[in-house]
Amino acid sequence: MTLELDTGLPSTKLLQGVLRDKQAVEVKLVTGDILNGTLRWQDPNCLCVDTEGQVTLVWRSAIAYLKVS
Amino acid sequence: MTLELDTGLPSTKLLQGVLRDKQAVEVKLVTGDILNGTLRWQDPNCLCVDTEGQVTLVWRSAIAYLKVS
Amino acid sequence: MTLELDTGLPSTKLLQGVLRDKQAVEVKLVTGDILNGTLRWQDPNCLCVDTEGQVTLVWRSAIAYLKVS
Amino acid sequence: MTLELDTGLPSTKLLQGVLRDKQAVEVKLVTGDILNGTLRWQDPNCLCVDTEGQVTLVWRSAIAYLKVS
Amino acid sequence: MTLELDTGLPSTKLLQGVLRDKQAVEVKLVTGDILNGTLRWQDPNCLCVDTEGQVTLVWRSAIAYLKVS
Amino acid sequence: MTLELDTGLPSTKLLQGVLRDKQAVEVKLVTGDILNGTLRWQDPNCLCVDTEGQVTLVWRSAIAYLKVS
Repeated sequence: MTLELDTGLPSTKLLQGVLRDKQAVEVKLVTGDILNGTLRWQDPNCLCVDTEGQVTLVWRSAIAYLKVS
Repeated sequence: MTLELDTGLPSTKLLQGVLRDKQAVEVKLVTGDILNGTLRWQDPNCLCVDTEGQVTLVWRSAIAYLKVS
Repeated sequence: MTLELDTGLPSTKLLQGVLRDKQAVEVKLVTGDILNGTLRWQDPNCLCVDTEGQVTLVWRSAIAYLKVS
Repeated sequence: MTLELDTGLPSTKLLQGVLRDKQAVEVKLVTGDILNGTLRWQDPNCLCVDTEGQVTLVWRSAIAYLKVS
Repeated sequence: MTLELDTGLPSTKLLQGVLRDKQAVEVKLVTGDILNGTLRWQDPNCLCVDTEGQVTLVWRSAIAYLKVS
Repeated sequence: MTLELDTGLPSTKLLQGVLRDKQAVEVKLVTGDILNGTLRWQDPNCLCVDTEGQVTLVWRSAIAYLKVS
C-alpha cells in the first residue's frame, strides 16, 4: 500500500496520457464487467473511472484489460 | 500484513471521505456478489462494510470495484 | 510467508474478537463456497475455521468476505 | 520466490502435522477442482499432493481451502 | 509498482524477441477472453497488445498464457 | 520481477527434474484450460510449456496445479 506510482513505466505513462486527454476507455474486469468512461486518476492500487458522472473506484488487481478507443 | 495504509493515496482519501460522510456504496466482488451499505473503516487488507447493521469484512483482494452513490 | 500478523490492524483485531468470543461466522470464498462455523485462529496466510468439529484451513487469498452473525 | 517457509506459523505447523501423520486431506482449488490425497511436502509456493501415487504440484495461490479428514 | 523489468529472465527475453520480431501472439486472460495481435511493449505490470491498430493494455496479473504463433 | 528462482525449494527442484527428463505434464490453469506437454524452462514468473512444438508461456499466477504423468 505504500508503493508509489512509478511514473517512468510505459503503462503509467499511457494511462496518464489517456486521463489527461480524457480519452474514452473500456475497462474489462475479471468479473466480466465492462466499464466505459474516462479516467479521473490512477494510483498504485486503483483506477478511478468516471462513467457518466458516476465515480467508480476500480482495483488494479481486478482489471483484465483496458482498451483505448 | 505489516503494510500501513498510505493516507496520501487518492484511493485511500476517496474511501476516507466516503466513510466519514457515510455515503452509500456498492461494492462488487470477484465472486459476483454485490454489497450495498456504508463503510465503517478501511485498513491495508480489508474494508469493513455495514449492510443494515450487519458487519461484513471484505478482503481488498476480492474487490472488483466500489461505486459511490 | 515470513510476514507477521499486524495485531494493530482493525481487521486483525476484529477477527481476534470474533475468535475469542467464538462468534459464528460465514466465510464466502472466491470459489463461491460458503463456510459456516467459528474461527480457531488466524495467521498471515490463513484462517482456521471450525465447521462442526471439522478443521478447515482457508487461504486468505481465497476469501471474498467474512460476515459476523 | 526467495521467501522461506515460516515454520512458526500455525498454518505451516498444521500442514507439517498433516503430512507427518499422512492424514487424508481434501484440497479445494479456485478452479473448483477437489484433490483428495495426502501431502508429501510443502514449500512457500506449493503443496505437493499425492493422489493414489500421482504427484500433483498445487500452487498455494490457487488453493481455496484444505480440509483435514 | 516500482519493480523494474528483469531483462535477464527467460520470460522477459522471450517476450522481447516476440515484440521485436512482431510475431503474432494469442493472449488468454483469466476472464476467458482471447486477444490476438502483436506486442508493442512490456513493463513489469502490463503488456501492451496491438489488435488491428487497437491499443489494449493487459495486466500481467490477468494473463493465463501467451502462445507464440 | 527481480526475484530469482530459489533453486533450493522442493517445487523448483521437482520442476527442474521434470524438464530435464522431459516428463509429460498436465498443467491446469485457473481458466479451466489444461495444457499437455513438456517443460522447456521455468523462471520466477512463468513456465514455458511445449505442446507439440507450440511454445506457450504460462504465468505461474494462473496455474492451479501441475501433474506429472
